[in-house]
Amino acid sequence: ALLWKSKSTFTSFDVFFLQMGWGDLGVFGEPSKETPNLDQMASEGMLFLDFYTANPLCSPSRAALLTGRLPVRNGFYTTNAHARNAYTPQEIVGGIPDSELLLPELLKKAGYINKIIGKWHLGHRPQFHPLKHGFDEWFGSPNCHFGPFDNRALPNIPLYRDWEMIGRYYEDFKIDLKTGEANLTQIYLQEALDFISKQQASQQPFFLYWAIDATHAPVYASKQFLGTSQRGLYGDAVREIDDSIGKILKHLQKLGISENTFVFFTSDNGAALISAPKQGGSNGRFLCGKQTTFEGGMREPAIAWWPGHIPAGGVSHQLGNVMDLFTTSLSLAGLQPPSDRQIDGIDLLPAILQGKLIDRPIFYYRGNEMMAVRVGLYKAHYWTWSNSWEEYSKGIDFCPGQNVSGVTTHTQEEHTTLPLLFHLGRDPGEKYPLSFASNEYQRAMEQISVIVQQHKVTMVPGEPQLNVCDKAVMNWSPPGCEKLGKCLKPPKSDPKKCFWPH
Amino acid sequence: ALLWKSKSTFTSFDVFFLQMGWGDLGVFGEPSKETPNLDQMASEGMLFLDFYTANPLCSPSRAALLTGRLPVRNGFYTTNAHARNAYTPQEIVGGIPDSELLLPELLKKAGYINKIIGKWHLGHRPQFHPLKHGFDEWFGSPNCHFGPFDNRALPNIPLYRDWEMIGRYYEDFKIDLKTGEANLTQIYLQEALDFISKQQASQQPFFLYWAIDATHAPVYASKQFLGTSQRGLYGDAVREIDDSIGKILKHLQKLGISENTFVFFTSDNGAALISAPKQGGSNGRFLCGKQTTFEGGMREPAIAWWPGHIPAGGVSHQLGNVMDLFTTSLSLAGLQPPSDRQIDGIDLLPAILQGKLIDRPIFYYRGNEMMAVRVGLYKAHYWTWSNSWEEYSKGIDFCPGQNVSGVTTHTQEEHTTLPLLFHLGRDPGEKYPLSFASNEYQRAMEQISVIVQQHKVTMVPGEPQLNVCDKAVMNWSPPGCEKLGKCLKPPKSDPKKCFWPH
Repeated sequence: ALLWKSKSTFTSFDVFFLQMGWGDLGVFGEPSKETPNLDQMASEGMLFLDFYTANPLCSPSRAALLTGRLPVRNGFYTTNAHARNAYTPQEIVGGIPDSELLLPELLKKAGYINKIIGKWHLGHRPQFHPLKHGFDEWFGSPNCHFGPFDNRALPNIPLYRDWEMIGRYYEDFKIDLKTGEANLTQIYLQEALDFISKQQASQQPFFLYWAIDATHAPVYASKQFLGTSQRGLYGDAVREIDDSIGKILKHLQKLGISENTFVFFTSDNGAALISAPKQGGSNGRFLCGKQTTFEGGMREPAIAWWPGHIPAGGVSHQLGNVMDLFTTSLSLAGLQPPSDRQIDGIDLLPAILQGKLIDRPIFYYRGNEMMAVRVGLYKAHYWTWSNSWEEYSKGIDFCPGQNVSGVTTHTQEEHTTLPLLFHLGRDPGEKYPLSFASNEYQRAMEQISVIVQQHKVTMVPGEPQLNVCDKAVMNWSPPGCEKLGKCLKPPKSDPKKCFWPH
Repeated sequence: ALLWKSKSTFTSFDVFFLQMGWGDLGVFGEPSKETPNLDQMASEGMLFLDFYTANPLCSPSRAALLTGRLPVRNGFYTTNAHARNAYTPQEIVGGIPDSELLLPELLKKAGYINKIIGKWHLGHRPQFHPLKHGFDEWFGSPNCHFGPFDNRALPNIPLYRDWEMIGRYYEDFKIDLKTGEANLTQIYLQEALDFISKQQASQQPFFLYWAIDATHAPVYASKQFLGTSQRGLYGDAVREIDDSIGKILKHLQKLGISENTFVFFTSDNGAALISAPKQGGSNGRFLCGKQTTFEGGMREPAIAWWPGHIPAGGVSHQLGNVMDLFTTSLSLAGLQPPSDRQIDGIDLLPAILQGKLIDRPIFYYRGNEMMAVRVGLYKAHYWTWSNSWEEYSKGIDFCPGQNVSGVTTHTQEEHTTLPLLFHLGRDPGEKYPLSFASNEYQRAMEQISVIVQQHKVTMVPGEPQLNVCDKAVMNWSPPGCEKLGKCLKPPKSDPKKCFWPH
C-alpha cells in the first residue's frame, strides 16, 4: 500500500551515480550474482527496466542529471567534429555555465543541505567549482583518477574538501595500479555515513550526490575486497560498491530516516567494454558499450528505494532518464522546475508511486548529433557509428565480440532519410532491423518522425563547452596547494581545439 | 532453517524440462521481465547459476536426464561424421536402448507413479515407448511438433495418451502457424494439474516429467496469451509457460503437498538463436546458442523449489547438470543409483540443502567428441566450431551478431594440444582466451589435463543410436490409428546413414 507523505514533510535525497553496466547487477543476470545489497535494494524498492542516461559518456551525463537538460542544451558537448563524445579532461577550458540552474541551487532555496561525494566532472577551473553551483559540501575530485602523472607534463588530480584541495591521487591518496589496491571507496563511504548522521542530528533535509570513481578504469578496490570476486578486480570493485550502498541504506534505516529519504541508484554510462574484462564491466545482452548510442552505451541499471512509499519489489517499464532525477527531486521537495528554459527531465513520481506510464521519447546523442531516438518499444537510428577504422585497427573496440552488419559501423553512417528501426522488446540486442517495406516500419516511423521533427525544430543548443583545451588550465595549483606545498607551475597558455577521436 | 525430512517419508518430484534460454527469465535479466512466476519460484527456492545441460540439443539432453549418463554413454549420439549433433526426427531408427535404466524404472520399485507430459524424444518406434521404460502414463508426442506435413511424404506427428495415439498435430491438435495460436500448453497444464490431484487423492508418491513442446519452433501460444508480451510471439509462449508453472506450484500448495514435492525447473538446451527473435529466445550475455558447446548452448536456467526444505532465495554456484536430477531424485527416494554402470550425475542434495560445493567437471560434447570441459571457473575448449561455412552462407547462424575471432569458428578447429582457456567468472561471454604463456594458463591446464585424461581413458561409449534413418519407420501407423482411421501406409524400408549437418 502506498503512503504518500504530504509535501510539507521534508524529504531528503540520496543519488548514487556510478559507472556500472546493466549486466553488472545480479538482479540483471550477472552470472556471478555478487551484488546482494543492490539486489535487495531492488526487491525492497522499484527496478527500472527502461532507464537511460543522457549521454554515453560521463561528464555530459552528470551535467544532464544536475540540470535536467540534454547536454546539447546545457553546453556539455563539442562541435569540433561531427558526432563526437567529449568530456572534461584536465586540459578542458570549459565547464558548467553559470546560466545553468543546478538541482542543488534550487534545493538550497527549500532549505536543503547539498553534498557531492566523488567525481564532479563539470569543469575544474575556479568558476566551475561545485560550491559555486549550489553544493554546500564537496569531498572528491574534479576529474577522473587517471594517472599517475609526473606533475611536469601533467599534474596528478587533486582531491578537494569543500573549497580546498587536500591532496592528490597517487601521492596522498594511493592507488596501487599493480595490485589494484586503493581504499578510496571506504573513504567515500565513511564521508557519506558521516554526512547523513550530521544531517539527521540537525534535522536538516539533505541532498547527497554520491558519485564515486570506483569501477571506472583504472579499477581499484580496498584490501578486504581484493580477490573476493569471481569476476576479478572489476568484480572486487563492484562488490565493494555494493557493500557500501548496503551500508548507507542500513545507516538510513538505523537513524530512522529511511522513510524520509528518497534514494536512487543509476549509472552515468554503460560499462566500458573497451576495458573489459579486467577493467570494465558488462552490459548484459545489450549491444556495445560506453561511447556508443546502442543500448549497451546508454541503458542503465536503475533502482528507486523509499521504504513505506515505494511498493517493495516493484518493476517499471517507464522510459526514464537521469535528467528525470532533477525534476523528480524538485517535485519531492515541493518545488517547480524552472520555467524560463527547456527541461528534458520529467517527474517520475506518478510512475514510481502510482505505477503510471508516461509517454515520452528518449534521445541518444553523440556531440550535437541526434543519433537515435526511442519511442515506446521502437528505437530508430538516424546515424550509426561505433568508432573509426583507424581507432579500431589500433585495438580500440567498443563492441568486443559483437558485430551487427550495417549497425555497429566503423564509418559514420547516415540513415536520416530511412532510419534503421529496431523493436527493443523482441530484439533488445539491436540485431534485427525491421524491414523498410513492412507495415510495422511505416506505422512506427510515422509516429517517430513527428516526434523527431518537433524535437529538432524546437532545439536551441547551448554554447558548446567542450571545444577548447589548454594545458595551462590543468590542476597545477588548486586552491589550498600552498598549505600543502603542492603548487605546480603551469605552462604558458596555448588554447587549442580539443581532439575528440570518437 | 533447514528441515530435512526422513527418507521414509515419500517425496514426489516434478521436473519441468523445457527449451528456454538463460536470458529468457526475468531473474536472469531479460529486459522485459515477464516471468513473474519463475522469478517467484526462484525467490522461494534456490537459483542455480552454473547449471548445464548434457548436450546442446534436445534428444540427447533428455536421454541424459532420464539415465543420469552422458549421451555418449547412453547411445544418444552419432558417429556418422565428426562432432555432429544428432536427435530423433521421425525417420530415426534408433532410440533409448533397453539396457539403459531410466529414472522412472528405478522409482517404480519404490512405489512411485511416473508420468511424462509432453515430448518424449527418445525414439518413437514401439520398443522405445515411454511406458516400456518405466513411465506409467504418457500424454504427449514422441517427436517435435514440426509440420504441417502432407501425410504422404511425411506423416504428421501423433499425440499419445498412454499406449495409443489420440490424434495428430495440425489435424486433431491445431497449431495455426499464421497467427501462432495453439492451446497445447493449456492442455498440457490441465493434464499436469489432474495428475497431481489424482496422486494426492490416492496418497501416491509420483514423478511428473513435464517436458512440453512450447517455445520450440514453430512457436505457439494460447489465444489469451497472444500479443501479451513485449517480446512478440516467443514472449507470449514464455508467458504462458510461466503462468502454467505458477499454476502448478500453487496447485501443489493448495493440495497441501508442496512440502512433499521436490520441483526442479531447467532446459534441455540453450535458446535457438537461429530462430530468434521471432521463434527463438535469449541466452543473455552468453556466447552463441543451441547446437554449440559455448555457454549459450549449454548453460541453463535452473531453479529448485521445495518449500520448508530449500531455504528461500538461495543461490548456488554448484556446477550442476541435468544428469544430476537422476541421482538427486534417487537419493530423495531413498534409492541407490545403479552400480553396474558409470553414472555421470551427482547427488545435489548437499548443495541444495546444506549449501555445500561439490567439485566436479562439466563436459561439453558434440556427437562423440569432447569439445570442451569446465573445471571450477575455467573452461577449456579442445575443439571449436559453430557451423560450416556452407551452412553459414545459407544464413544459418548459431551466433547472430556475435563473432569472437578464433572461437566461433566456421571450420572445426582442433585445440587438443593447446586448448583455448577462458575464465568464466571474469569472462562469462568467452571473448578473451587466456594467454598460453601465462602462469594462470599453465596452472589451470595442469589440473584440467588430468581430469580430461582420466575421463577419456575410462570412457566406454555406448552403441550409437542416431546413425541410421529410414522413412519407413516414421509415424505412419502408430498404435490406435485404426480406431481413428488415421493409419498411413509406410514406404518401403530404405535405411540410410542420417545426415547431420552440424
